[in-house]
Amino acid sequence: MTTPDEGRLPHAQEQLPGTGRPPGDGPSERLARAGLTRVLEPGDSRGGQWLRRLGPVALFDRLRGEGPPLPGATAGRMAGLRLRARDARPELDLAAAREAGARFVCPGDVEWPAQLDDLGDARPLGLWVRGTPSLRFWALRSVALVGARACTDYGAHATGLLGAGLAERGWVVVSGGAYGIDGAAHRATLGAGGATVAVLACGVDSPYPRGHAQLIARIAEQGLVVSELPPGDHPTPSRFVLRNRVIAALTRGTVVVEAAHRSGALSTARAALRLGRAVIGVPGPVTSGLSAGVHELLRGEGHLVADAGDIVELVGGIGELAPAKSGPVLPRDLLPERLGRTLEAVPAGPGGLLERIARGAATSIDETAGRLHELLALGFVERGGENWKLTRQALSGGFPTCDDPVAKVPSCPDHAP
Amino acid sequence: MTTPDEGRLPHAQEQLPGTGRPPGDGPSERLARAGLTRVLEPGDSRGGQWLRRLGPVALFDRLRGEGPPLPGATAGRMAGLRLRARDARPELDLAAAREAGARFVCPGDVEWPAQLDDLGDARPLGLWVRGTPSLRFWALRSVALVGARACTDYGAHATGLLGAGLAERGWVVVSGGAYGIDGAAHRATLGAGGATVAVLACGVDSPYPRGHAQLIARIAEQGLVVSELPPGDHPTPSRFVLRNRVIAALTRGTVVVEAAHRSGALSTARAALRLGRAVIGVPGPVTSGLSAGVHELLRGEGHLVADAGDIVELVGGIGELAPAKSGPVLPRDLLPERLGRTLEAVPAGPGGLLERIARGAATSIDETAGRLHELLALGFVERGGENWKLTRQALSGGFPTCDDPVAKVPSCPDHAP
Repeated sequence: MTTPDEGRLPHAQEQLPGTGRPPGDGPSERLARAGLTRVLEPGDSRGGQWLRRLGPVALFDRLRGEGPPLPGATAGRMAGLRLRARDARPELDLAAAREAGARFVCPGDVEWPAQLDDLGDARPLGLWVRGTPSLRFWALRSVALVGARACTDYGAHATGLLGAGLAERGWVVVSGGAYGIDGAAHRATLGAGGATVAVLACGVDSPYPRGHAQLIARIAEQGLVVSELPPGDHPTPSRFVLRNRVIAALTRGTVVVEAAHRSGALSTARAALRLGRAVIGVPGPVTSGLSAGVHELLRGEGHLVADAGDIVELVGGIGELAPAKSGPVLPRDLLPERLGRTLEAVPAGPGGLLERIARGAATSIDETAGRLHELLALGFVERGGENWKLTRQALSGGFPTCDDPVAKVPSCPDHAP
Repeated sequence: MTTPDEGRLPHAQEQLPGTGRPPGDGPSERLARAGLTRVLEPGDSRGGQWLRRLGPVALFDRLRGEGPPLPGATAGRMAGLRLRARDARPELDLAAAREAGARFVCPGDVEWPAQLDDLGDARPLGLWVRGTPSLRFWALRSVALVGARACTDYGAHATGLLGAGLAERGWVVVSGGAYGIDGAAHRATLGAGGATVAVLACGVDSPYPRGHAQLIARIAEQGLVVSELPPGDHPTPSRFVLRNRVIAALTRGTVVVEAAHRSGALSTARAALRLGRAVIGVPGPVTSGLSAGVHELLRGEGHLVADAGDIVELVGGIGELAPAKSGPVLPRDLLPERLGRTLEAVPAGPGGLLERIARGAATSIDETAGRLHELLALGFVERGGENWKLTRQALSGGFPTCDDPVAKVPSCPDHAP
């Protein structure tokens, strides 16, 4: 695992800061990165160093060809990597992803969440993403809600309250799609019409655990399903742990609801701590072994929270990953057309129910919810309970909206009789 | 309430530091202080200023006589204090206390717990004490365990575990004798053969609440019952709150088990914080209103604990109120005879059950337990579970004990066939 300082090293060969364009020879780089996700295990820092020095195309070629071993790799390790590289068919993986409604997002892409660069050489090679919203926009205002698989009724109940509370405040809930706390977090967020992201330790088209196939499919419709691993790949114990660093890096803070001593959820918290993210714990009875790990965390660097408001208080203040609170980061004209259309349907005052906005923007409820959370991350809209409305910043920017009496848009379908 | 800085002002007129003797004219000072406990309310800082300037005898005389009002007192307040002073009969109060098996301990007495001086002008005028052990010795290694009256089953259970755990580690548990958490704390400590102190907001001979009359009587037998208020006096809402500052000042730390927002137990924690003592909270379900106040505390200055070991880790390190860990503070020759006799009956190794030591010292089990906790505070003995034994320091000091093969005391009754 890398330290935060290493995470701030520039990745000069791979990313042109500020342009949002993939550097150099885009398609072949993307193909090489997709291929490398079949070869290198998630979080392989040595592989990340090779990538940083050689670039993805040269590295993938080198692993597929003959020649001297890469620096620091034994002959045995090189042979193993070459076996994998020889079998890699990134064109087929990209096609399988498309088939499953997924895309492959690379560093340098507009959709790449730049905070993942804090992982340094352990940064994902790329992310396979299922679902329509922008991962980058969603991750700007996101919190991880994780915990024990074999959780108690108390843990599941507390997670439900927190997930719903975060959703009502417009925060994106990220978790690992597992049984127990993870599942409760996703379900509560979905149930409250919120935005949720499942980061899996297997291919996004072959969800694990099997018992959550339906839940994960639902997340892919209303939210996002994300993985470092290519389509069809399966989880291993170390992949679960390494997946946790992505959850920690993607979010502004990690909330652990229930965790026994030495629980996997604590590895997410430790990763969050190393990355300078907020580390947060939900206390429970001292008589419960499933709260013991959380209490350990709270005796150290962890912050105690009792409700969603407490969480927002902690992560809302961090801000370095988020757009400035003073106004939208993007002028409205530069918004993608699908976001602009949704924005036009959001009222300045009350009455902004999701269904009404979807009707106004003439699109599905799931898509509208996804876009509203993107607009929220960008500072254009805010959510209070069931209602969405324009932020004061969006209003004072003088953008024409349905409710703006001066610059009324006459054809706004939401106002049709 | 006073600040810690005020608490460090010297009380030059009242106490000759280091001598342990009451200053000047002892008996009349004690009588005046006893009388003043009928006149001034607990924690009256203005009264404490008068006391510091005039001394107890002159102040009591001035309140009983005519003359100009005291500085800062309105005519109405002076009249009220004079009404009370006119009715005060300290000789009768001291006699009633003796009758109830209680004594009146004053600043400057050997038994006075010097840490109460941290309360500054709000320091108690004196303490009415029921029970045989030395309040000063016991308070050296004491922790307050307090919380809600209308506690939950979880709170009572957690308190039971903590009280018993503290008792097994030889720590003295101080609480307020109330229903709920306080009662559970006293009972658990008594049940584990431990040392417990109830600090009441009424006379030590007229326990409140009535439903705890039997419990408080039992505490007076096996432990100590303490109050600022003279015999027969009754509690008031403000007296409960002001009593809490004595609990906080007496102990090395205050543990709050369950407390709603704005609970009285939180006032003890706040007093502990002001006095520089450890402020400690026991977490509970976030769905429980009776844990909400504790969680509030834990989000601020409070330390989270899950068991008695955690508490000892926090308060054991503070040490400024305690004897140095390197050895007993008193040479054995200077121990009171009753403590010396008990010490002789403590083995260096295993087998030091309370009953066996009581037999060895030829005294009752309650008295033996009381003395052992005094010896523990002084660094001579230690407790592990049910067993008492000499500390390494006591042994290396070369004191003759039952188990010392060189300096064996031949007549030691514990070793009689």
